[in-house]
Amino acid sequence: MTHEVTNQAPPLTGHDAADDAVLLEGVRREGAEWHLEELHRFGRYVGSEEAQHWADQANRHEPELRTHDRFGHRIDEVEFHPAYHSLMDASVRAGLAGAAWADERPGAHVARAGGFMLATMLEQGHLCPVSMTYAVVPALRRSPDLAKTYEPLLTSRVYEPGLSTPAAKRGLLAGMGMTEKQGGTDVRANTTAAVEQADGTWRLRGHKWFTSAPMNDLFLVLAQSPGGLSCFLVPRVLPDGSRNTFRIQRLKDKLGNRSNASSEPEFDDTVAWLVGDEGKGVRTIIDMVTMTRLDCVLGSAAGIRAALAQAAHHTRHRSVFGVELIDQPLMRNVLADLSLESEAATTLALRLAGAADRAHRGDADERAFLRLATAIGKYWVCKRQPVAVAEALECLGGNGYDEASGMPRLYREAPLNGIWEGSGNVNALDMLRALTREPESLEALSAEIGAAAGADARLDAAWRELRAELARPEDAQLRARRVVERAALVLQGSLLVRHAPAAVADAFCASRLAGDQGLAFGTLPAGTDFAGLLGRLPA
Amino acid sequence: MTHEVTNQAPPLTGHDAADDAVLLEGVRREGAEWHLEELHRFGRYVGSEEAQHWADQANRHEPELRTHDRFGHRIDEVEFHPAYHSLMDASVRAGLAGAAWADERPGAHVARAGGFMLATMLEQGHLCPVSMTYAVVPALRRSPDLAKTYEPLLTSRVYEPGLSTPAAKRGLLAGMGMTEKQGGTDVRANTTAAVEQADGTWRLRGHKWFTSAPMNDLFLVLAQSPGGLSCFLVPRVLPDGSRNTFRIQRLKDKLGNRSNASSEPEFDDTVAWLVGDEGKGVRTIIDMVTMTRLDCVLGSAAGIRAALAQAAHHTRHRSVFGVELIDQPLMRNVLADLSLESEAATTLALRLAGAADRAHRGDADERAFLRLATAIGKYWVCKRQPVAVAEALECLGGNGYDEASGMPRLYREAPLNGIWEGSGNVNALDMLRALTREPESLEALSAEIGAAAGADARLDAAWRELRAELARPEDAQLRARRVVERAALVLQGSLLVRHAPAAVADAFCASRLAGDQGLAFGTLPAGTDFAGLLGRLPA
Repeated sequence: MTHEVTNQAPPLTGHDAADDAVLLEGVRREGAEWHLEELHRFGRYVGSEEAQHWADQANRHEPELRTHDRFGHRIDEVEFHPAYHSLMDASVRAGLAGAAWADERPGAHVARAGGFMLATMLEQGHLCPVSMTYAVVPALRRSPDLAKTYEPLLTSRVYEPGLSTPAAKRGLLAGMGMTEKQGGTDVRANTTAAVEQADGTWRLRGHKWFTSAPMNDLFLVLAQSPGGLSCFLVPRVLPDGSRNTFRIQRLKDKLGNRSNASSEPEFDDTVAWLVGDEGKGVRTIIDMVTMTRLDCVLGSAAGIRAALAQAAHHTRHRSVFGVELIDQPLMRNVLADLSLESEAATTLALRLAGAADRAHRGDADERAFLRLATAIGKYWVCKRQPVAVAEALECLGGNGYDEASGMPRLYREAPLNGIWEGSGNVNALDMLRALTREPESLEALSAEIGAAAGADARLDAAWRELRAELARPEDAQLRARRVVERAALVLQGSLLVRHAPAAVADAFCASRLAGDQGLAFGTLPAGTDFAGLLGRLPA
Repeated sequence: MTHEVTNQAPPLTGHDAADDAVLLEGVRREGAEWHLEELHRFGRYVGSEEAQHWADQANRHEPELRTHDRFGHRIDEVEFHPAYHSLMDASVRAGLAGAAWADERPGAHVARAGGFMLATMLEQGHLCPVSMTYAVVPALRRSPDLAKTYEPLLTSRVYEPGLSTPAAKRGLLAGMGMTEKQGGTDVRANTTAAVEQADGTWRLRGHKWFTSAPMNDLFLVLAQSPGGLSCFLVPRVLPDGSRNTFRIQRLKDKLGNRSNASSEPEFDDTVAWLVGDEGKGVRTIIDMVTMTRLDCVLGSAAGIRAALAQAAHHTRHRSVFGVELIDQPLMRNVLADLSLESEAATTLALRLAGAADRAHRGDADERAFLRLATAIGKYWVCKRQPVAVAEALECLGGNGYDEASGMPRLYREAPLNGIWEGSGNVNALDMLRALTREPESLEALSAEIGAAAGADARLDAAWRELRAELARPEDAQLRARRVVERAALVLQGSLLVRHAPAAVADAFCASRLAGDQGLAFGTLPAGTDFAGLLGRLPA
């Protein structure tokens, strides 16, 4: 033996990932205290060595496209590793797909959000189909006949993979196909054409550029019909058991999210059913996109928190120059700043989940708030994910750049939530659209922020300045990122001032609102209550 | 055919990567105008389809460790793809390894820095051995006998791979082995032991945790000798042609830099030669680390610029809602802000290369400046790389998350320069060390910044505040990131005010120094000369 191995951290495993005050307080505050015991059970699953092994395997043994069977028949199937199926089964059983829509308890969507965050900390890729299945339900309700058939199966807690007749399965998964090569964000440039048949069904011809989870059962797809861009439901398998045409050209070779298959399908005489009104496709599918954007915020908050947990764990178990890293002054500043960012992200994400829960139970104010705050949260929390994760990765030094640490996977996932379901610019501009077209959304945001009025002078000042910015009509697009960022920070500040420990609220107002910080993490002012912030680190 | 492909950007290839005003002006300013023609030749190589194909292949067909030959003999070799060797050959022939040390023309190190940046834009992984070979020369000179034998081969422009007797090769490559499992940054915790032999050579026993490019010929290694931590030169092959003991346990499974093999070697009765004074190992090897840190700054500036070039290219060739992306107001703000960041990074990096060039020709002021400014630049430019690259990746939307775009490779490389050769905290604390132990370095930095005094009131104010911060002794470590960040920004501002177009200097002072910006990119104030900034984008 040339040496002994000492001063290396043990793996972070065998713990309860829900043993996390920031997460639990948020879930409780937003109305799902009744779910905490179940969250702890799920947190122990997320922290288990077995689940972590699945997460690793599902990303190393990537899904494989099988365009043809051995005899040359076109099959367009994707084969996943058993670990992927294990992850899917656990997440669907935990109710992270459509189940919340069938749960009448107030807070059901918050409960689901807490579980979704924990599952994201474990493995992000498999949650793409889970999230889309959750998100499709409100859009599908625009066609009650379709909803009547499929909603019970989309809200089921049964994971039944494989292509077979949808109505005969015990649980279904849904996906979406919006963007095309030539348009991307600009879905009105779509060229996929829909032609109505005598029987009231439609036939599609065209392509999609990013369609994830192509083994899902049903897809919401945008296509041009005589009445304009419309939304359709495309099943992989038709009610008679025959396969619909869904030619997968290739799987995307993605930076991360490797466990998830993302494909380029082509439609040719593909059977589809109209969802919502003809010509109102964007309005219909936006009901789905609103929910996937919420999941992006939850996912980014979780991605930051997962990276922070690893950084905290490593620095607790590694000493340098005779002192544990977590006790070194500069590292304390880095971890405290990351912890602050993470708490702000988590608190906002769960607030949005609470708004979604209440909005879907008929609360108009919460619906108006959700409209604007989702765009703001999607912009900001997702924008911060790559920055925060890169900083957390660096806390592990060279080990953080090694796949075995798990940090590279978190880092590769980090930019994704900021891109899919609308990039940063798309969401910043969507905020402008909401301000113009739905002024009640600004009223709701104002009421939310105003609830903390008088509690912190820095917050009050920031909110005054933001109102002035919002009122300036000139150069609105050019200034959109400044405004959306400030809106996010003021909203986060308002939440933390009301709900977080004083150390957190004070540090947030000092750094993010009053500007007493640098551009990078680890630049909190010397007067910060570092111990108070570090006390909020995940265990 | 279900559709035509339109509105997708062509690949960015067949261009001259040196057709870049920011790069060329910097190289000229720092004293290597005589090299511009050669830079253009190299830029055409970097932009060529063939070289880009090599870069892709070298990362997809990764180096493979061969611990044993077919008969069971231990060989500890790494096999690289031919594309890797092609990249190495081109970079060594271009003089990016040790050649600048044998070039008496003033500006030789600047010329080399310009080429190093271009090569980095092409492929970062193969430059690790190139950089180490460049960096080893000043350290090796502490042992004139060793330098006499090996320096001519380390400064050669011949790439001769393979393990054979060093002195018989036409060109050598060098590496380094500093850190161990239990210590990392804390190299004084190293346990590798060195024992002197009767013939004046030494024998090592122990391990290293990160030793990149293990097929290089010579390695500077830290080990404990009776006189303390000392620096040794370890050859892979001994002068008599036999193999030295260098047992590669495994190759690191790294996030990025996949073309580069990074290994964990174990030493057991391994022959080594003392370099510099016994017990002064850190002082000796720091001569090497100073130069690799310079390359980290150059590499990060280049990584940012490569990503920016892709973002500019994509947005020039993609239209959304009938307008090219590069002409959309919010995208203009994002690109202008990234361009500003990139110019500041490139200008600072080349200023450091100029300082290195002059310092090695005997300029004591430049040596003092380099001491402090390297720590500052290594902290800040490397810290900004992941943030800027993530933003540039997002400019391509979903395509940026696809491997085929090349952005994922740039993104995976992004955190590396901020970690190896000392993480962000290590460099922030190294700045404090320089301020305390080498006060002349602060004088030199002050002179550099002061050269722009009076040119911009925002710069003057920022420099006044920074001086006050530097003079505060309390909580120095806790505040180190704030101070190092401000020092970097003031230094960059001083350079841009003197050397960059007015649009660039003004926007930098407004945003980075006077704080009229957000935390994210794309938040430049409305009064910015956006056209002026966008005019600085790479072609």
